[in-house]
Formats: sequence, structure tokens, C-alpha cells
Amino acid sequence: MIENPGKTIQGGVCAASGFRAHAVECGVKDPKALRLDLGLVYSAEPAVTAGVFTTNRIKAAPVKVSQSHVRATEVQAMLVNSGNANACTGTEGVEHAKSSTKIVAKELGINMRQVAVCSTGVIGLPLPIERIEAKLPELVQGLASSHTQADLFAKSIMTSDTRQKEVAIEIEIDGRLVKIGGCTKGAGMIKPSMATMLCFITTDIGIEKSLLQIILSEATEQTFNRISIDGDMSTNDTVLVMANGASGAKVESLQSESGKLFAAALTYVMDQLAREIVLDGEKVTKFITLKVVNASSQLNAKKIAEAVSNSPLVKSAWNGDDPNWGRVIHAVGYARASIREELIDILWGEELACEGGKLGPAAIAKLREVASQNAFELTIDLKMGDSDYTMYTSDLSPEYVDYNRSEYSYWKAVERNQGS
Amino acid sequence: MIENPGKTIQGGVCAASGFRAHAVECGVKDPKALRLDLGLVYSAEPAVTAGVFTTNRIKAAPVKVSQSHVRATEVQAMLVNSGNANACTGTEGVEHAKSSTKIVAKELGINMRQVAVCSTGVIGLPLPIERIEAKLPELVQGLASSHTQADLFAKSIMTSDTRQKEVAIEIEIDGRLVKIGGCTKGAGMIKPSMATMLCFITTDIGIEKSLLQIILSEATEQTFNRISIDGDMSTNDTVLVMANGASGAKVESLQSESGKLFAAALTYVMDQLAREIVLDGEKVTKFITLKVVNASSQLNAKKIAEAVSNSPLVKSAWNGDDPNWGRVIHAVGYARASIREELIDILWGEELACEGGKLGPAAIAKLREVASQNAFELTIDLKMGDSDYTMYTSDLSPEYVDYNRSEYSYWKAVERNQGS
Repeated sequence: MIENPGKTIQGGVCAASGFRAHAVECGVKDPKALRLDLGLVYSAEPAVTAGVFTTNRIKAAPVKVSQSHVRATEVQAMLVNSGNANACTGTEGVEHAKSSTKIVAKELGINMRQVAVCSTGVIGLPLPIERIEAKLPELVQGLASSHTQADLFAKSIMTSDTRQKEVAIEIEIDGRLVKIGGCTKGAGMIKPSMATMLCFITTDIGIEKSLLQIILSEATEQTFNRISIDGDMSTNDTVLVMANGASGAKVESLQSESGKLFAAALTYVMDQLAREIVLDGEKVTKFITLKVVNASSQLNAKKIAEAVSNSPLVKSAWNGDDPNWGRVIHAVGYARASIREELIDILWGEELACEGGKLGPAAIAKLREVASQNAFELTIDLKMGDSDYTMYTSDLSPEYVDYNRSEYSYWKAVERNQGS
Repeated sequence: MIENPGKTIQGGVCAASGFRAHAVECGVKDPKALRLDLGLVYSAEPAVTAGVFTTNRIKAAPVKVSQSHVRATEVQAMLVNSGNANACTGTEGVEHAKSSTKIVAKELGINMRQVAVCSTGVIGLPLPIERIEAKLPELVQGLASSHTQADLFAKSIMTSDTRQKEVAIEIEIDGRLVKIGGCTKGAGMIKPSMATMLCFITTDIGIEKSLLQIILSEATEQTFNRISIDGDMSTNDTVLVMANGASGAKVESLQSESGKLFAAALTYVMDQLAREIVLDGEKVTKFITLKVVNASSQLNAKKIAEAVSNSPLVKSAWNGDDPNWGRVIHAVGYARASIREELIDILWGEELACEGGKLGPAAIAKLREVASQNAFELTIDLKMGDSDYTMYTSDLSPEYVDYNRSEYSYWKAVERNQGS
């Protein structure tokens, strides 16, 4: 758990000075069932912007467009739709993503490359671009800075999320108050997941682009990459940070006190949002902090954490309040990491379920007490070295499978699309 | 689908000349609920024996013992218990496995190293060795050669399997009838799975050990490794083949006609058994033949087949009769294989769901018709080269998760064990 280096405040993406937001209903997913599904964040001044994008080799059209825009210039706006991923939509999909940035840019009087664009929803259906374009002027006109506007935006990016996920903090740098706020959406089982993870962060710090990118990449590694795995991201995953300098405070280097403080603050904000994603995972009933400790290397620790947290059988056992250390150690065994069976301890909370690779001293009643909690720590102690790796993960419920076999089906999306 | 190069016959592990089998109830899992759980196969003559064992770094005690026995000598007996995996049981577990081989050997008048031993069931609980040892004399005394004895053995190795899985065929080599028969147990979702896969095959061919091992390893790669993944095997997975030469026919080399025929026959037998495992997977409702075609290499084709067949979201969609090609192409994207999005076609049966990385021409009704069948082919055409890879896989059902969260829980196993 990462410490808050500052003070929690209200306001999400509108917490930092100079940012405005808005969202509207435009029926992206289903024109007959309107919901907030098109959102915009805007900075009055050009903002230094850094991004982390999916490593999936199938990249959605908006990812391709945003990567190029963020690389090219200082961004002023982030446009997001939910309900359709605009992925696997060919050159037409790229044209749609570009044309939406063009219209927003025109309305705002900026260059189209100053608009980043993200989409989340079903893969493989053409984006209903007419419905989106028709609403863009209204979206731009409604931009304003307030908690409620930030809430609207946070709501508009949700898909199977059951609640909006926002956080904001303030820190003091050079005697000035610097604010960092953001929101995210996730849902889907955390990993293996095809649900898109999007995260939008705004801050009024002054910072250079290359430095912001380094701090963002490292913070992503410490947070979002510990709930999902590099390379297994969805076609659309995106984290964007805009820094407009409006606070007057500046971060000059990573080594400076202010650099360290800003990095800690950004990491804290992203950690909070990452935890929120796990807590709101589809039909999730458990929040497990999975700690692999005393591995011979970071890579070995990570391999094991990922193997355990991705096993449907381990996750099913968690769902059933079952302290099934046999399933856990089995996953440890196939992680292709360096281990010695006879050294391995596995603990539910403080209870030693497995000691030296065998049945440990913990009473089954004690183990079940921990396993029955909504949130618990599971520790795998390899006793091979001093590298640790912690992940946040969740159980797998029958309801998850049922939800993904029916509610979120492709053919229903097609029918909705055809019915429009 | 592999062709039968011979003729299907009856008899399972007793089909080949010179093999006997038996099984008894000894309450390994629960002394208060007896079921067939201890089985033995015996060859009157020492048999050339080859084995393929789990690549999991956590290996069960019987795997360690059998690996050393098979390496050392010509085996005459295979002893199997279900209900307890004897895995993660330390040096005591190895002692238990050894002592059971010793008692069987004494009863049979052979060397203990001529007895291979396998276990399947819950991981991490001490093997109730007294109950097993008490039944070994009766087990040996009951050995006989008949279909019903083979059936008893096939039943005794089952865990969450709902039915026994046996096959036998005969082929003609050098004018003599050669028989190959076997049985297997699987269950668990096919992959990622922690359920143990065991397979026992007997044949009366005459063959050298090194040649038998080569043919077995290649046949495993073509069959069992295409429903499960190297390195992701359970702590106990084992395939054993005993060849006692009783038919009088001999295979001298891999290149000879008889060598090719025997290899084809063994592969066919194992393919049939592997398909049976998928068909009887825990709470499985669909049998999917997943074909990745025209990949730039075998490895790329395999990576993609495994990524797609292991995705809970893809498997949930299959369960829901949903031709969700977006989830499939997404898994293709994160398989870390060489692909070009704009070339990819995805077909449900003959129906082109995705063409060139985009929505294909197939009508959704046609796609749903295929997706609703109990068994169908799903083809991913990469158009990058000429390498193909086919896997048998299954859906993931809410019932699977429910079953693994409760029925097969560790704490219930502990309670049964303590109550004994």
C-alpha cells in the first residue's frame, strides 16, 4: 500500500487549476438506451502530456491516433467514448477517430493533434460516428470546472464498472499548492482481461515532457501493471497525464526533492485508482494482496505472482473461501521461476498454511477465517533471495462467467447496432 | 482428427496379450465413502516402459519415484491411487510412494523398481498409507485379464471425471496382430488446469526402450500437449506405456513401415483419449477444435492457439453461444506472436466472422448457429506463412467455477481427512 504524500481533496480531473470537463449522452452503444457515453477534458493552456498505451499487437484506432498526437505536440483535450472500442475497424476506424478530434479541435480553436482520443466497449463493430459527431459541439460548449463536471466525465467512461473511480490530492512544492486528480475505468476480471483500462490524470505542475513520461512509466509499472500484465493489455488500454503548469510550481529533475514528491504523489493517485479497479472488478467478491517475497530475482517473483493470480482454479478457490494452498503451490511450480519446493512457505494473513513445501501448522479453522474475509493478504515466501513483488488481484466467481457469457455478448451488441 | 490406422477393439489396458488388471476400494479420500480408488496393471513378463512426466517444478512424490524406476529397469506393474495426490508431502510422501511399490513387488515376486506408482487427488495432505497398504495384497490377488478388469482399473483412476475413458485398437505387423490399449483420466478445465492427467497404455509390441520413448514423446506432443500446455502440467501428470513383446511382432526403427504404423497407432490411441478428456472436462458444454493456420512459424501458431484457448473471456463467450470474434482477435494480439492485423480472418465453422482484421460478411444468425453447436471448429487464418497448429479446447461455464469453489475444496478434504 502506497502512502499518501499529500492531502486528499475533491474534484477528480477538475481538481487541478485550469482544467474543465463535460460529458453527454449520445447513444454510442444503443441509441434507444441513452447514458453518459461521451466525455471531454480540456486545458485552457497547452499541457505537457505523457501516455502509456496498450502493448497488445492489435491496437484500436484511437490508440494509434492518440499515440501520434501525444508524441507530436502539447495536448489540450482528451475525448473519450464508451460503448464501442473502435478496435478492429480498419482504416475507417482511424478516419473516425481522426475526424472526431478534428471537430473537437475546430470547436475549441486548437489543432486536431492537440486532441487525444480514447474508446472503450465492444471490439469489431464500426463506431457510430454520426451520433458522436452530432454531439461534439454540445460537449465542448458544456465544458466547465467543478466537482460535478469531473463526476460527469468519470461516469461517461464507464462500461461494466458499477461505480465511478476518481481521486485527487494536493501537495506543496516550492511553497505552492500542486494538485493531481484523475479517474479511471476498468471492470472485467482484472487479468486475464479484455476489458479496457483507461485512466486520465490532470495536474497543474510544470514539468518537461520527457521527465513526465519517465515518472508516468515508472508509476504505471508500480500500479496498473501490478493488476494487469504487460502484453496482455486490451486493444484500447491507455493512461494519459496532462500537466499544464498552472500552479506555478516546477519539477526540474527526478533526483530533486520536488521531483521525488511529485513522483510519489502521482504513484499514489494511480495506486488508488488501480485498487479501485480491482475492487470494482466484474462480479468480484474478494480483494487479495498477493505478496511473493524472498525470491531470487524480481523477475522470478513477478512470474510467480502472475501465474498464481491468473489461475482460474486458484481464483475459484478464493471465491469459495477455500485456503487451498495446494492450488497455489501448483501454480508456483508451473511459473517457470527458480524455486526450491522444500523451502516454500504460504500464508493466509499470518497463518502458515504451507511450511517448507508441506502442510503447515495453521489450524484449518483459522485459515478459513482469513479466507472468508472480503480482503486478505496471501504471502508466498520462497526463501531464495531478497526480491519481492506485490500484486492486487481478485477472485473468479460463477457470476463473472455468467455475466461474460450473456450480458456482454457480441451478438447482442450486433443486434443493438443493427436495430439503430 | 487423427485417422485410425487399425481396428477398434475392446479391453482397455487388458486388450494386449499378457496384461492383467484389478482395482479395489480403500477409502483414500474418505474412509466413510468407499469407491474404487486403488488400481493395478501387471505384465507377466518384464515390459519395456517409457514415460512422460509433468514439467511442473513442484513434482509429486510418486512422479519422482516412477521417473527413477522407469529409467532404471523394465517395469512390470503400474499402481495408481485416486483421492490424494501425494504432492507437497515432503520426504514422508516419497517414503509412502516407495513403501507401496515395495509391498506390491513383494506380493508379485518382483523388484520394487519394477513397480511404477501414480497418485491423483488433493495436493498437500499426507497419503493415508495404512489404508492403502492394507489393501495391496487383495489388489494383487485379484489381478486378471478381461474387459471388466480393465474397466475396474479405468474407474479407479477417476477423480472429478464423470465417466471412464478407455480405448484399444489392433494393427497388423509382420503378419501378427498387435494390440494397443489404454485409459486416461482428466477433468478439470483443460487448461489452465491443476487437475491431474494420467494415462496408462499397454501394448504387446516388441520394441527397444529408446525407440518407445521417442515415439511416446512425439505422440504426446501431437495429442496431450495440444489440450494442455507444456510446463503448465499438474504436479502429478504422467503418461506411461508398457510394451511386453507378447505379440511376437517387433518394431526395429522409426523409419520402417512397421515403425510408422506403430507410431500412428499409438498416436491415434492417445488422440482418442485426449479428446475424451476435453469432452469430459469439468462442466464443459462445448468441444472446440481450434485451428490456427498459415502462421509464419509453428511456434507463432502455437502461441496464438494457447492464448486464445486459455482466455476466460473467450471461453465464457463460447459457453454463451456467442461468436465474439473481438475477444478472439484480442487474445491473438497479446499472444506475442508475429501477426498483421489487416490480414487476419476468423471463422466459426465456414462462416467468416472477421475478414482482414475487420467485421466479416457472415450474417450474425449464421454465426450464432455455429456457435450454438456442442462441437464446432474455430479457424484463425493469419496469412503469414504455412504453419498450422490445432488444439482441442472447451468452454468455461459458471458451473465450473461453482464446482471448483465448493465441491473440490481443500478445507472439505481436510475435514474428511481429520474425520477419518
